[in-house]
Amino acid sequence: MGSVAPSWQDKAEKKRQAVLDLIPPAWRLPLPLPSTKAQKNVTGAFVQQYLTPHEVEITEATAAQIVAKTTAGAWTATDVVTAFCHRAALAHQLTNCLHEIFFDQAIAEAARLDAQMAAGHGPAGPLHGLPVSFKDQFHVRGVETTMGYVGWIGTFEGQTGTGQEKEAESELVREVRALGGVPFCKTSLPHTVMSGETWNNIVGFTYNPHNRLMSCGGSSGGEGALLAMRGSPIGFGTDIGGSIRIPSAFNGLYGLRPSFGRVPYLGAANSMPGQNSIPSVCGPLAASPGALKLMLQAVLQQEPWLHDPAVVELPWRALLATLPATAGTPLTFGLWAGDGLVSPLPPVQRAFDTVKDRIHALGHHTIVWTPPSHDEATELAVEAFTADGGIDIHHHIGLSGEPLQPRIQAMYGDKPSAPKTADALSAFNLRLGRYRKAYMDYWNSTAALTKSGAPVDAVLAPVAPHAALELGKALHIGYTPWVNTLDYTAVVFPVTKVDPAQDQLATDYEPRSALDKTIRDEYDPQLQEGTPVGLQLVGRRFQEEKVLALVEMLSDALAA
Amino acid sequence: MGSVAPSWQDKAEKKRQAVLDLIPPAWRLPLPLPSTKAQKNVTGAFVQQYLTPHEVEITEATAAQIVAKTTAGAWTATDVVTAFCHRAALAHQLTNCLHEIFFDQAIAEAARLDAQMAAGHGPAGPLHGLPVSFKDQFHVRGVETTMGYVGWIGTFEGQTGTGQEKEAESELVREVRALGGVPFCKTSLPHTVMSGETWNNIVGFTYNPHNRLMSCGGSSGGEGALLAMRGSPIGFGTDIGGSIRIPSAFNGLYGLRPSFGRVPYLGAANSMPGQNSIPSVCGPLAASPGALKLMLQAVLQQEPWLHDPAVVELPWRALLATLPATAGTPLTFGLWAGDGLVSPLPPVQRAFDTVKDRIHALGHHTIVWTPPSHDEATELAVEAFTADGGIDIHHHIGLSGEPLQPRIQAMYGDKPSAPKTADALSAFNLRLGRYRKAYMDYWNSTAALTKSGAPVDAVLAPVAPHAALELGKALHIGYTPWVNTLDYTAVVFPVTKVDPAQDQLATDYEPRSALDKTIRDEYDPQLQEGTPVGLQLVGRRFQEEKVLALVEMLSDALAA
Repeated sequence: MGSVAPSWQDKAEKKRQAVLDLIPPAWRLPLPLPSTKAQKNVTGAFVQQYLTPHEVEITEATAAQIVAKTTAGAWTATDVVTAFCHRAALAHQLTNCLHEIFFDQAIAEAARLDAQMAAGHGPAGPLHGLPVSFKDQFHVRGVETTMGYVGWIGTFEGQTGTGQEKEAESELVREVRALGGVPFCKTSLPHTVMSGETWNNIVGFTYNPHNRLMSCGGSSGGEGALLAMRGSPIGFGTDIGGSIRIPSAFNGLYGLRPSFGRVPYLGAANSMPGQNSIPSVCGPLAASPGALKLMLQAVLQQEPWLHDPAVVELPWRALLATLPATAGTPLTFGLWAGDGLVSPLPPVQRAFDTVKDRIHALGHHTIVWTPPSHDEATELAVEAFTADGGIDIHHHIGLSGEPLQPRIQAMYGDKPSAPKTADALSAFNLRLGRYRKAYMDYWNSTAALTKSGAPVDAVLAPVAPHAALELGKALHIGYTPWVNTLDYTAVVFPVTKVDPAQDQLATDYEPRSALDKTIRDEYDPQLQEGTPVGLQLVGRRFQEEKVLALVEMLSDALAA
Repeated sequence: MGSVAPSWQDKAEKKRQAVLDLIPPAWRLPLPLPSTKAQKNVTGAFVQQYLTPHEVEITEATAAQIVAKTTAGAWTATDVVTAFCHRAALAHQLTNCLHEIFFDQAIAEAARLDAQMAAGHGPAGPLHGLPVSFKDQFHVRGVETTMGYVGWIGTFEGQTGTGQEKEAESELVREVRALGGVPFCKTSLPHTVMSGETWNNIVGFTYNPHNRLMSCGGSSGGEGALLAMRGSPIGFGTDIGGSIRIPSAFNGLYGLRPSFGRVPYLGAANSMPGQNSIPSVCGPLAASPGALKLMLQAVLQQEPWLHDPAVVELPWRALLATLPATAGTPLTFGLWAGDGLVSPLPPVQRAFDTVKDRIHALGHHTIVWTPPSHDEATELAVEAFTADGGIDIHHHIGLSGEPLQPRIQAMYGDKPSAPKTADALSAFNLRLGRYRKAYMDYWNSTAALTKSGAPVDAVLAPVAPHAALELGKALHIGYTPWVNTLDYTAVVFPVTKVDPAQDQLATDYEPRSALDKTIRDEYDPQLQEGTPVGLQLVGRRFQEEKVLALVEMLSDALAA
């Protein structure tokens, strides 16, 4: 009998263990680890006990504070990078948030940056010594990219002999390095990236650090968990239907979903990568709004339009970024409080009302947002995502024979179906264009409803009807895809946490749908206690500077 | 026996006659018209004999000169619009360049503008009283759009009962009106718009006014002929593979092919309208470079990104437009003198050498341009244009049963073939992306070859290996599609005219291909005498301001 090829389970387990083995013994947590039930919240004081005071100081500073220190030489890049590597190692042991660890490479790079500073060359760039994490779609030289597929282990996007294995580097990673940033780990995601939960056959389930009984969301869920643990000061995720925004909201973070063509996606792995009707975009997540702004400004300094053909030449626009101070008249916010299928649960509604009150307290105005149907936008998005009949996804799942995650199978079936033909795709693109035009016309029409006579400046909306849920409980992904369908700009910001004392269900509620009833039946504020609630602020296409400025304003008001 | 449905020939002839009938008797030319052989050149003195001196003064002014007069009240909109209507009527009788005539509507609009001025309201906008022609893809209220299809006569894009027949107006037309511009006629094109010649089963062949034995090019050929006749001060065409640039070059005009998303295309008819891999764009053609600049600036003032979801928020960038004065160091131009299949014929080569010499005389530099294969770019373009297997085109041809123009049939077959599937289209889009990236890298790499240390500023290239040819002679459409495949900015400008004394073939030439040999065998400088030769200057994506400024510089140098 010859040797038997390893099973997908063996390959996955070996990979999972190999990543864990990259954590230095000094950074291992004592075994047995506390159960997720015994230690639900592993942020803050819990994780701090394993760190030195200086490590806590570094890892709880904002990205802006960190680069202020590193570029002035007050903190060494080595100290900063090492502190984050340590905390990321702890985060991974507690939440399963990492796919690739390359702390050695990062610490060596930090030493190189320190040597340059010591030699009088000054900081390498505006991100000098800033650790940056990446969702496991981005290629980083020296490590592999699995995108959660067992069949991608030891390959380049499922292929061998390409010469690109562990050699390729995505354009965004190159730019972050050129700015002085230090990539140090890659974060977990659901295989295919087409899910709002982070679960795959390699690392299993990634826990929500604020409440480990709950999901961290997805698909950029590893970023969400790592950043909530303060295991990274800033990271990059991707968003095709909510994949930056859902983990940002579920983990108490800020997250930017820019319009397509603002931030370079070139050379990153993806599902259905040539699908260009409603494309995926990449953007940063962080614990402070200033970090998103710092990163977008820095990336734009690299003139990504000279390196990625899909990027539009739009440098940082300072004027847009100085809103609302320069607006002169009060701003107007549209208020959209949920779709036709599921209404927000109490903690989300409370967050929404809180922000609405802050907007009014700031002297700005609101109108009720009654746009073309967001349910239709979601239908269009699903049609774009499934245009190839699932051929791409089933191909990559099939490389190892691993099972497709059930929620994803619900969308893509258990085998490929007939792809759309080019003529049908053209008809679809025209339908998409008509939806976008109708929405644009609606937005313009609000000029007649505002006191300023200008259309609304941005739209306030929940990210989901619920906060983070237990794995397998009914999720509703209906509040985010409209932004992708429209290619608008959205920034998520944290507002509150689930509080059983305030967030009990009303008893007289009439469900909007069977899904709405299920979500309400499953709602348990006691279990969800402490789980963050965030909202999104949505602007028109390519309004990143403006929406970031408005979110900074709202965050300041919430903190006051 | 019941009545027999009219044949496509009857419908086409009735439509052709109906358009002719809209020309007022006073503007009819005496019959019989001179034959194309007896009166090859109908521009200049020939057409002037039918106009008053004031009509000649108006119609030979540049667009900038015209709006300077109309906005100051020195010329009435009525006089300006009427003069162009008259000259357009003459142009049509001599070249077959019009599809729709709505002089009455235009003159009424001019009277309204004049009344507003008389009432002290000032000019309606920067285009006050400026007549603007449109290729017959744009919808104008009050008239129909056939796009050269017999089956579209009396319909809205081939459909009846839509409520849009003679009601729809394209976004660009709306914006031109809002700027004070006056649409007054729509111009001929080949049915499908997928041809470099202008011939259809309704109006037949559109002649080149400089030499009526020759084609006016295509697909925006009616614009080319009308503008060369000075029957319009500025018009809009579209370009998916060279359709603005070829008629601009063949008729001695300036033409701007902007990047996709700069000028609104929304609400215009098109072939394969949902094809978004290598999309068609619209842009202006005119007899002066200043007209293109005036029009682009004016359209951008309308903030088209608030009205067409495909338009990017890129206002007019004054800094880019002040090149080369602000450049400081000498500029560098890439020189690309033809593709792998066909080399330029003598008049085109002479034009190229003339401009190269002017560039050097201005103190600027040149390098030889050796990019990724433009033949490959053409192959990619053809693959995108035929992705639907010709389903769209055959459907619209089939509405009337008219025959497909043979050159177009060579590309689309005599019946539809299997369309690409979505997965194959995704793979194609990735291949397209790789080509664009390789080209971008090549462009960046020229920084090592220039004296300034910056990559080349723009690339000088022929528009075709030949000037305008007789209908049916071998055309080569290989010099223009690379710009579409890359979505770059290109501006065509006139350089010279075919001159038998200077443009004889070398006797020792070794043809690059069978097509090259045919084109040389068919070359007849005597027959082509007086036919214009233009070149294109190509910049990177969204570099409209820069390329327009550079063309203005080159044009000034050529005129000096």
